[in-house]
Amino acid sequence: MNRIVVALGGNALQEAGKPATAEVQLEVIRNTSKRLADLIENGHRIVIAHGNGPQVGRIVVQNEMSAHITPAMPFDVCGAMSQGMIGYHIQQTLRDELRSRSRNIPVTTIVTQVVVDKNDAAFNNPTKPIGPFYSKEEAEKLRDKKGYDIVEDAGRGWRRVVPSPDPKKIIEIEAVKSLIEAGQIVITVGGGGIPVIETEDNRLAGVAAVIDKDLASERLAEDLDADMLMILTAVDRVAINFGKPDQKDLDILSPEDAEKYMEEGHFAAGSMLPKVRAAVRFARSRPGRKAIIASLDKAVEALRGKSGTVIKM
Amino acid sequence: MNRIVVALGGNALQEAGKPATAEVQLEVIRNTSKRLADLIENGHRIVIAHGNGPQVGRIVVQNEMSAHITPAMPFDVCGAMSQGMIGYHIQQTLRDELRSRSRNIPVTTIVTQVVVDKNDAAFNNPTKPIGPFYSKEEAEKLRDKKGYDIVEDAGRGWRRVVPSPDPKKIIEIEAVKSLIEAGQIVITVGGGGIPVIETEDNRLAGVAAVIDKDLASERLAEDLDADMLMILTAVDRVAINFGKPDQKDLDILSPEDAEKYMEEGHFAAGSMLPKVRAAVRFARSRPGRKAIIASLDKAVEALRGKSGTVIKM
Repeated sequence: MNRIVVALGGNALQEAGKPATAEVQLEVIRNTSKRLADLIENGHRIVIAHGNGPQVGRIVVQNEMSAHITPAMPFDVCGAMSQGMIGYHIQQTLRDELRSRSRNIPVTTIVTQVVVDKNDAAFNNPTKPIGPFYSKEEAEKLRDKKGYDIVEDAGRGWRRVVPSPDPKKIIEIEAVKSLIEAGQIVITVGGGGIPVIETEDNRLAGVAAVIDKDLASERLAEDLDADMLMILTAVDRVAINFGKPDQKDLDILSPEDAEKYMEEGHFAAGSMLPKVRAAVRFARSRPGRKAIIASLDKAVEALRGKSGTVIKM
Repeated sequence: MNRIVVALGGNALQEAGKPATAEVQLEVIRNTSKRLADLIENGHRIVIAHGNGPQVGRIVVQNEMSAHITPAMPFDVCGAMSQGMIGYHIQQTLRDELRSRSRNIPVTTIVTQVVVDKNDAAFNNPTKPIGPFYSKEEAEKLRDKKGYDIVEDAGRGWRRVVPSPDPKKIIEIEAVKSLIEAGQIVITVGGGGIPVIETEDNRLAGVAAVIDKDLASERLAEDLDADMLMILTAVDRVAINFGKPDQKDLDILSPEDAEKYMEEGHFAAGSMLPKVRAAVRFARSRPGRKAIIASLDKAVEALRGKSGTVIKM
């Protein structure tokens, strides 16, 4: 029996093009939980991580739009809220699904902080857009009043951007380990974790940043000495020349080739690129460790070698 | 060494009269964590529960006020968000405080669902106001469109009301137990827990309801076989004839006397009444169990018998 960190992407949590209601989220996550239960039924011990991009964006919108009535919470607190929101639906539906298969395994969400280095170069170069679109005037007012970094986003308006620093340490890792050792299923590092820095007086302080969820999942997989990092997404395999006539799907990929393809620009930033980067990092972290990037709907097949892209040394 | 479930009230999480910013919340909770660390330093093993009334109310406001931009989340999801928000600040500040005292004990928030009986009589009599005030016209529109129960609230406007059913079962109790057994500190049943019912096909479904946080804490204390339920609030002791010339503070109270005083209307609904009710329930649940209602700032003194009101058979 091996241990797998499963990182869920946006398609596992919401359906693009449908209204972002709780009902739609719950329905999509209910289906995701079926796929996760398949993995468990096949004898795999999983730990669950997930993204939160669209969800935390909506929470930020709700906070900003109601700021004249009740104070807007800062970004780290919005991240904590998104962990509660998404984790609740995963733990509820996965418990139900497991019970319907006569497997009464506790499933629990851990509110999780992830430390980033306050000197991370990313803090000098915020790139990750979050929250609503503003007019130029509104955006400049927020910049002057709240110190937000703002950018013009592809002709669609102005947005706040935050840095995306590297995950260094998972604060709640001991709790995750204890629950795993007790045979339970844990949902953790939601949205890449709540980003915190260590201050000079050795305390934690939330920061406005987005930790990439694939890199946080990779950190988690290393900390748990997992056998595998499984990154689930909407496509069956990593491809080069994606969407072109000479598209080539890859069933196996060495870290060296992956880096070459990354340099050649085969993988889209904010989509396949961070997944491949996290997969390479895990494969390189210790001999024998491997990563799989696969489709949520073919997760079991991927573990049987019939789908997905394996990244290993 | 005994095990204590500590239930934190509103004064432990926010300062009345100050703006409800994250900074104020964090400052108040930092102080609360000092008091909790005092308990731990004095050799007590604590499990932490907390309310969420004002916080979840503000989340509901943010959701309703932004509903023209992004769909409002239902009340159970707002409760999950409030667990993330409040739990994050408690676990961050309590960890920091313990480390500053050279005690590196993991502190973790568990997203927690609490089952209520779908036939609970409370569902026929919703009494708990939540979220923003509306005009009569707005309130009637929400009633007709969304099925909300609405009431006129003391001349201040119209509000939605939800039922307050009795907590029956804590879904994530096994995770709480595992972490306690590992010597860790757990934050759970935030806001009384996310209210869920068991459906006819044996699944969980979130409902719009508020579970009293003191009764949820009592349920938790029973499930953990705790020695004590400690309900922390803003006053030193339970009093009869509160605020009158013949006010009498009580240092000890039998369940029988407590019930007599409750019937006589000595305790304010939504304030001291639910605390006394939960304390009586715990004291009656098994011989030897006792509850203490005390001031947050005198928690340690209360455990030394120098403050607070002890409720026991």
